[in-house]
Amino acid sequence: QTVCSLKPKVYDYEERAKLCTNSVTRRLLEIMGEKRSNLALSADVTTSQELLQLVDKVGPHVCIVKTHIDILEDFTQETVTKLSQLAARHNFLIFEDRKFADIGNTVLHQFGGGMYNISSWAHIINAHGVPGPGVVHGLREVGASKGCGCLLIAEMSSAGNLATGDYTTATVSMAEANKDFVIGFISVNNLTSDPTFIHMTPGVQLTAGQDSLGQQYLTPSEVITNRGSDIIIVGRGIYEAKDPVEAAKQFQLAGYDAFVARLTEFMTS
Amino acid sequence: QTVCSLKPKVYDYEERAKLCTNSVTRRLLEIMGEKRSNLALSADVTTSQELLQLVDKVGPHVCIVKTHIDILEDFTQETVTKLSQLAARHNFLIFEDRKFADIGNTVLHQFGGGMYNISSWAHIINAHGVPGPGVVHGLREVGASKGCGCLLIAEMSSAGNLATGDYTTATVSMAEANKDFVIGFISVNNLTSDPTFIHMTPGVQLTAGQDSLGQQYLTPSEVITNRGSDIIIVGRGIYEAKDPVEAAKQFQLAGYDAFVARLTEFMTS
Repeated sequence: QTVCSLKPKVYDYEERAKLCTNSVTRRLLEIMGEKRSNLALSADVTTSQELLQLVDKVGPHVCIVKTHIDILEDFTQETVTKLSQLAARHNFLIFEDRKFADIGNTVLHQFGGGMYNISSWAHIINAHGVPGPGVVHGLREVGASKGCGCLLIAEMSSAGNLATGDYTTATVSMAEANKDFVIGFISVNNLTSDPTFIHMTPGVQLTAGQDSLGQQYLTPSEVITNRGSDIIIVGRGIYEAKDPVEAAKQFQLAGYDAFVARLTEFMTS
Repeated sequence: QTVCSLKPKVYDYEERAKLCTNSVTRRLLEIMGEKRSNLALSADVTTSQELLQLVDKVGPHVCIVKTHIDILEDFTQETVTKLSQLAARHNFLIFEDRKFADIGNTVLHQFGGGMYNISSWAHIINAHGVPGPGVVHGLREVGASKGCGCLLIAEMSSAGNLATGDYTTATVSMAEANKDFVIGFISVNNLTSDPTFIHMTPGVQLTAGQDSLGQQYLTPSEVITNRGSDIIIVGRGIYEAKDPVEAAKQFQLAGYDAFVARLTEFMTS
């Protein structure tokens, strides 16, 4: 194969895993290859039972389960213990979508303490770049030694969001300056040709559209094939479906097909 | 008094309270006038006992107690019940500094549900503008009927933060478009001449400086007299002081003197 295009190289997941020194990124890419899944479930349900039942059913089809632990009405330590057991059984990583967004000294306590003790069970967390690099430094003080990886929110999927232009550029720079701990981005586009950064895109449905509070939806093929993101994050498209397992299978297939299409396009370009 | 300056009018607290239709803003300004305090305590301790003891001692000197409820290791419903009792006894408002920063459908659940059920006890909350107006609309669905007010984080005190320029301008516009629910700003400058918006400034110490994770400190007179903010938010300057009550009294006096200086400067200009 002769590469004569200026497009950045597209790697398959196993090949790309070998380029990564960060253990979370490597593990994630290995899972994506093993399970043929670039699907993250956004498990936005509000009781522990719903969460664990949903994750047990859908777990085989996803590489990541994304939580909002602070919307559970009945959180106990047992909830995350069981969730971690499901992660081991079904081979996925847990991503707590906390969107840390405070100064370093505060996020350090929010991540490493409190009732949720997120640093004891989440493989992946995320943060907004708006507080400046201190937010990353504070989270790293807690998370780096625990093998936790952090995504920076460089773009958002919601209408009228301010994560654009210079804001996005500054966030990407913050990630590049902290590559030991920042493993990639929440974004709606591919933002760097560095294959060791992972891009995850929320707001994915099988048809484009918008909810009543400004969330905007893109399709798996738009996100993965056209925009070059790595992972589709799907919430309501799965947990509000009549048959969540069937829906998850559809998204898994759509996401993986979209990746194969991108890979094929690159190989033949 | 003839106003011949172009500076916006400076009101005393009681006079300004009468201009406000929002009940939270009016109540806050009344408290500030009654207690002669523009001091908010940032009560960043990690156990309920420390929190309640600190607040009981310092409560008489502050107009607001600001919490990070998610850093408490031993939160129970009783913690916020007792905190609310202290708020009534000492005449202050409770501001949960959650920095909501997600899409509308998510913050709606984070604010109105979960273990903390923030909407049941916080008089004031805050949000980043980065997700776009949906974040305000989602919070309003829960908070407006409960008489809760929201601050938007238009500027931050941390080094290298991205809440500047167009980002700040867009956040101010978002506030102006949602005046029924947004009561003002977290900022390090006065951002509007509208007297019904409150400005609160974190990162205040009696001497300027910086912590090891990028927090930058300004003095009460810089914040209130020179920059025209309304409220100084003080954390470590009080709860890490040898005598927190004595420290609170100092900040109360420094903050109020700084306000009187601004008022006097306006009256005589």
